[in-house]
Amino acid sequence: MALVTAGFAVSADGFTAGPGQSLDKPFGAGPVSELTRWMFQTPDENKAEMDALVQADAYIMGRNMFSPGRGEWDLSWRGWWGEEPPYHGPVFVLTHHERDDLPMDGGTTFHFVTGGVEEAMSRAAEAAGDGRVDIAGGAATVNQFLAAGLVDELTLSITPVVLGEGERLFAGVPPLKLEQISSRAASLVTHITYRVVR
Amino acid sequence: MALVTAGFAVSADGFTAGPGQSLDKPFGAGPVSELTRWMFQTPDENKAEMDALVQADAYIMGRNMFSPGRGEWDLSWRGWWGEEPPYHGPVFVLTHHERDDLPMDGGTTFHFVTGGVEEAMSRAAEAAGDGRVDIAGGAATVNQFLAAGLVDELTLSITPVVLGEGERLFAGVPPLKLEQISSRAASLVTHITYRVVR
Repeated sequence: MALVTAGFAVSADGFTAGPGQSLDKPFGAGPVSELTRWMFQTPDENKAEMDALVQADAYIMGRNMFSPGRGEWDLSWRGWWGEEPPYHGPVFVLTHHERDDLPMDGGTTFHFVTGGVEEAMSRAAEAAGDGRVDIAGGAATVNQFLAAGLVDELTLSITPVVLGEGERLFAGVPPLKLEQISSRAASLVTHITYRVVR
Repeated sequence: MALVTAGFAVSADGFTAGPGQSLDKPFGAGPVSELTRWMFQTPDENKAEMDALVQADAYIMGRNMFSPGRGEWDLSWRGWWGEEPPYHGPVFVLTHHERDDLPMDGGTTFHFVTGGVEEAMSRAAEAAGDGRVDIAGGAATVNQFLAAGLVDELTLSITPVVLGEGERLFAGVPPLKLEQISSRAASLVTHITYRVVR
């Protein structure tokens, strides 16, 4: 059985992005540069956590993480990552609009799933085998999987900023018992990994 | 000038208590025992953080942290802590209802402040001198002081539970830049202290 993980940079008040995300502002408005400053300014300190984001065997992401567009597909949009995305494996994109598989350079293939979280998880788990499925984001997507009881481990990279509004991790998620399985402080962030207790 | 601090146990989703707080359930409903389990099961590991909660030179707390009552005072209520509260110093209680000072054993005196956050801070800072004023709680109270720009350092003791609803730390607080000044993992909790950047 595949291990299902998710990892997010969050503000101290629990947001993964500010309000008003757009093509120009993928993290929305407000002091959102703090969410990723640790990645850009201190990559050596945080290599393990950054690597973990792109070393799974299969990925699931929401439509909004793949594309700034909504509604019918603009087929010229091939993701935010250029011709060689960092995933190097299958990525299942949740959407209400069908689209053919999109193979990219370096082994990444985007698969577009219209059957909801269960179909996405079923296909990703089959692709991952005994490996790892990572719910890549965004917050609304991981919240669906958390609410459905489909996440095994969750890493919060807690960053030193209060955003006040935006995309809230855990919105709509019912009470869950967690187990803190690791916690590590770096200079600009604290990484805590929880196991979801069932 | 006094240093103004606040320290809270919070759930992974940012609540300091569940919904429906009452005399019988001071932390409200839900799996709220996780918020304080580290204090009861691993006190030796967390002595510094627990001591910090009761070693300030003056304290401010909300009416609801002092008393389960609302409206006019029941003068027989002398706090949750028995005749010798752990504060051993002046405690300024925010309220809309006047009440005479209430000296207790061991040096704690409860002062009831009807002039709002500024009056409470002014009196607590005067009492603390060059020492420390701690905003003891609850969340609604510290949120008022955070929103007013009156907090210097904030410690979050992040506990392994998702509550889903309740008293939310940072509710109504506008965007703030923070600096992570310490972060420490214990087995059941992670303590992060932030400085508020002005």
